[in-house]
Amino acid sequence: MKLALVGLGLLTYVSAEVSRRQTQIDYNATPPNISTLPDGSLFDTWRPKAHVLPPTGHIGDPTGHYVDPNTGFFHVGYLYTSYGDEPIPGGAAAAITSNFVTYEDISFPDPRFIEPGGVNDPLAVFDGTVIASGYQGNPTFIYTAVSFLPISWTLPYIPGSETQAIAVSNDTGRNFTKLERGPVIASQPFALNVTGWRDPFSFQDSEFDKLLNSTEDSWYLLVSGGVHGVGPAIFLYRQYDPEFMEWEYLGRVWREAANTTWGDGVWAGRWGFNFEVGNIFRIGSDGLDSNGTLFTLTGTEGGKYGVQGGRAQLWAAHELEAPTNETVSMNVTMAGVLDWGMAAYAAAGKDVPASSKPSQESGAPDRYVVWVWLTGTFYGSIPFPTKPQGWDSSLLTPRELYVETITNVVDNALVHETGSWKISSTDSTSGTVDIATLGIKPVREAITAYINEFATAYTEAGRTLNVTASNTTAIPFTEPPKSRHYVLEASLTFPQSARNASDFRAGFQILSSEFERTTIYYQFSNESLIVDRTNSSAVALTTGGIDSRNEAGRLRLWDVKEENGVKLESLNLQIIVDNSIVEIYANNRFTLSTLVLPWYDASKGISFYAEGEGTVTFSNVTVYEGLVDAWPERP
Amino acid sequence: MKLALVGLGLLTYVSAEVSRRQTQIDYNATPPNISTLPDGSLFDTWRPKAHVLPPTGHIGDPTGHYVDPNTGFFHVGYLYTSYGDEPIPGGAAAAITSNFVTYEDISFPDPRFIEPGGVNDPLAVFDGTVIASGYQGNPTFIYTAVSFLPISWTLPYIPGSETQAIAVSNDTGRNFTKLERGPVIASQPFALNVTGWRDPFSFQDSEFDKLLNSTEDSWYLLVSGGVHGVGPAIFLYRQYDPEFMEWEYLGRVWREAANTTWGDGVWAGRWGFNFEVGNIFRIGSDGLDSNGTLFTLTGTEGGKYGVQGGRAQLWAAHELEAPTNETVSMNVTMAGVLDWGMAAYAAAGKDVPASSKPSQESGAPDRYVVWVWLTGTFYGSIPFPTKPQGWDSSLLTPRELYVETITNVVDNALVHETGSWKISSTDSTSGTVDIATLGIKPVREAITAYINEFATAYTEAGRTLNVTASNTTAIPFTEPPKSRHYVLEASLTFPQSARNASDFRAGFQILSSEFERTTIYYQFSNESLIVDRTNSSAVALTTGGIDSRNEAGRLRLWDVKEENGVKLESLNLQIIVDNSIVEIYANNRFTLSTLVLPWYDASKGISFYAEGEGTVTFSNVTVYEGLVDAWPERP
Repeated sequence: MKLALVGLGLLTYVSAEVSRRQTQIDYNATPPNISTLPDGSLFDTWRPKAHVLPPTGHIGDPTGHYVDPNTGFFHVGYLYTSYGDEPIPGGAAAAITSNFVTYEDISFPDPRFIEPGGVNDPLAVFDGTVIASGYQGNPTFIYTAVSFLPISWTLPYIPGSETQAIAVSNDTGRNFTKLERGPVIASQPFALNVTGWRDPFSFQDSEFDKLLNSTEDSWYLLVSGGVHGVGPAIFLYRQYDPEFMEWEYLGRVWREAANTTWGDGVWAGRWGFNFEVGNIFRIGSDGLDSNGTLFTLTGTEGGKYGVQGGRAQLWAAHELEAPTNETVSMNVTMAGVLDWGMAAYAAAGKDVPASSKPSQESGAPDRYVVWVWLTGTFYGSIPFPTKPQGWDSSLLTPRELYVETITNVVDNALVHETGSWKISSTDSTSGTVDIATLGIKPVREAITAYINEFATAYTEAGRTLNVTASNTTAIPFTEPPKSRHYVLEASLTFPQSARNASDFRAGFQILSSEFERTTIYYQFSNESLIVDRTNSSAVALTTGGIDSRNEAGRLRLWDVKEENGVKLESLNLQIIVDNSIVEIYANNRFTLSTLVLPWYDASKGISFYAEGEGTVTFSNVTVYEGLVDAWPERP
Repeated sequence: MKLALVGLGLLTYVSAEVSRRQTQIDYNATPPNISTLPDGSLFDTWRPKAHVLPPTGHIGDPTGHYVDPNTGFFHVGYLYTSYGDEPIPGGAAAAITSNFVTYEDISFPDPRFIEPGGVNDPLAVFDGTVIASGYQGNPTFIYTAVSFLPISWTLPYIPGSETQAIAVSNDTGRNFTKLERGPVIASQPFALNVTGWRDPFSFQDSEFDKLLNSTEDSWYLLVSGGVHGVGPAIFLYRQYDPEFMEWEYLGRVWREAANTTWGDGVWAGRWGFNFEVGNIFRIGSDGLDSNGTLFTLTGTEGGKYGVQGGRAQLWAAHELEAPTNETVSMNVTMAGVLDWGMAAYAAAGKDVPASSKPSQESGAPDRYVVWVWLTGTFYGSIPFPTKPQGWDSSLLTPRELYVETITNVVDNALVHETGSWKISSTDSTSGTVDIATLGIKPVREAITAYINEFATAYTEAGRTLNVTASNTTAIPFTEPPKSRHYVLEASLTFPQSARNASDFRAGFQILSSEFERTTIYYQFSNESLIVDRTNSSAVALTTGGIDSRNEAGRLRLWDVKEENGVKLESLNLQIIVDNSIVEIYANNRFTLSTLVLPWYDASKGISFYAEGEGTVTFSNVTVYEGLVDAWPERP
């Protein structure tokens, strides 16, 4: 794969201003209260190199991605707010990539393609969706235009605060010009006291066409939200005219009762009170598949951590049911969590056809690629000192979604729980089932680049830890990484008895030194993969706004029937560490991403880790160090 | 009747600035090109004294009238634009009256109660309607908020250019504060390519309640407009919540095909292509009557004078039909013209209950009182030199509407035409019918003040003119008025043979001198009352923008059976002359208002007038001179 951005050439970064300040800071000493440091003095301290984030300032939700029909380049969009400008302008910005590895800002230093302040969006631009060949054949952004604030499902809704407006690009996405007209959907559905009504998502689907008696290849919009006192919901609209100016309201295609859960809530968390950023797509075992299974991604508000701001990034699979109540119903068949990180949210994906530039180069089939946001201020609720850093938050590594099948799983009670899977086939002879779930992998081009092409790879010898005391066992790698930019891969194998080991934990400590460490471990008692950030950052002792809470996600290791008997499925970890961003991928179906802020230069070590009573065998332990500078053109 | 505005006391006019400039102008000599005169130098030249218009600047549509529930005072509202301020602010303004004779600005010199420039109305405030006990029991203005311009039925409609927004007064109407929320109706009906969608009008009606299965005493809104390629229409909305925040769309309650007419179009003109300022009310022989006949007033665009801007101010009577197509249908039973003046338009009325201050003083029953706008620039289409005048346009004398019955009309072919009347009863024994039509009279308090209380009245001896040559006969009054502020009353009686007198005309010349004259006459050949302005103003010879076109309206003088045989109904004229405003009332069912701009001081004469071949007898000829200064508090 060739990483040079041949042919993009949008910009020459000559007179770039970056909010980076050279200040002498001693990373071998106890940190100061970093909120007292000069603006920009921590610019590089925790900044990721391989991730998508703006040159400076705040990144919000990923939004408005598309493959430009003229260039084949993928545009990754995001909400953006610069620091320091008053009034803070905000808007939506974008970068372009031909390979999902390196990126170029569509403009620099201000990467916005649309700003608020127009007739329809005087206060803000919220998430939108791009129809690549839209109005007059050009890329068309349909987005939530904001006229009144505040907007929150916890507050009475201000009718008219959100409308769905339209803007069009005539310059392959560098700018989107608002059409001189009102919103394409001017108000929330009549007489519904909504909790929210935003984040339109455009799609086409032949089964929707059929069940709704639509013209073939009709476009639809999902709008996410909910109804006060009722629950979260997805609102469905259908294209009415060829130029995307009018959208017919068809009803709530998906409703959940407020504050309820999928099953007992263990596997998919709570539906909450309001949906955001609903995505919909149809996938099979290789990626996009028009005959595949219908999936949605939704951000849910108010469920995960109780009423105060808890958010969860969920996925669900659906079967469509012909119109009964308001419109077709998207009945849920299984549901799970796309990324278990508390700060990982607002996932926004897009169809990436095989004809796109990245896919042409990598040979990938039609894919659904999703971007997840990692908030660095926990949704603005913690006082992380953003000004000394000069930026905050990031998008996570893009991910490919597909239907993952786990074969030969023992047909016991575990598989029949209501969870983030469903039985796709049963073999009563062997007493096994195949289980289908949402498959999640880092986008192939990126992980290939990080592992195969650019990394300094070294293997740490595998080992078995057999712990009996309830003391922590942490055995440092013989060769620690030299940087905080790497991918760590490993397989952890456990005896079947581990399932009943109430206190057994095993995994790694990373970003570790005598001062700091972050422990990532699987814990059998609650089938959880946990990130202990209690000692992750010495800064937490001096400065407010450093989130030291544990992260946790649920992952079941199945009983799998092999030739020589039933074995517990291995835990296959792939951990991307990019300075402060830690993304944990497990078994092609689990991700947990979190922010870790080690202070000391020394905090780069990795240790094998086990605790409690049990046995774990580590194998295929490899560190691929280096990652890739995603922004070669930035100063 | 007591004219002092006891108890209003809203303002003290101390430091008022008025755009009146003292300039020596010779009204005994040929006028200059008046567009070259200094700003304000013609301020008093043609300014009416008894009419409602703002202190300075431009007055547009009357709108947003109401009787304040706390004070009982009537608020007469109007669209207003000041001259000279850039950007021109616009908005809606009001004056308060306790008697329909004298008025006080709600604030001075800027009489606005609402300005554009908010989130919902960045460009303009258009017509609205006040629910006197609305949101939280306070006067509530629901109005058309404008976000995009231009707006015209001749142009493609910009969706979202008009929405219906809400503002509330907490200070008995001096200011209306926009609620911090979006419009109460956010967009035109789905998928309708409207020609216009504005001027909400609020009402309650028990028959609507019954036919629509509504809660008793539901509020409704009419919104006026039309659909491109289909025709003008009235859109109906119903109150959904007790605070008037949501309005349910019920469909088009009245539709006409584009550019069609009522009957052959002689009596009601054309429906045009777009409706504006639709009003609805139910009246009987005394005024408002909940068991009376349903009437509407609508401004129609595009019909009267062809495609270029022709407007007509029509009325219609309706019978409600139960919902069949979209909603109830307001079937037309008769239709006519509220004011035949080409420049008289945008009528806006309001219920005036017997409990209101004016009615308590005058003893009037519940009434529907309507205000008509007289544009001084012919809807902005002629270059009348407004800046030298410092103001333009006016409202006309408010009028009471009721059902007028003409009894003992001979049951011949004339009564069976499709016209602005219908047969209310038939007496086959006598061969007569009674005819019902819309009754129109100047509001009783005003005409009483002008005639009974404050006038210098003098009677001109009646006379019969028997003309045989086709020469003009014009016989000056023995005593001409000393001013241009008076009411002229007269009865003109014609022999029955006059109906067939093809060229016979009779009436008055007013505002006349050797240099100028305005001829008002009835002409039998087309049953029309005509105002000949050809020689009305010497200024037309020096300056552009002086409208010298004839005005004409259709009035049928019925054959009435009296004791001693069949007679032609008399023509009973009541003409209000207020400097430049001439309002002609005839037979309680006809009005024609126009602007006349005499230059010469001498142009105050009145003459009996007849022409062609025929006989006319003038009787009860009285001039009531003086009128009343409607604005005693203004400087």
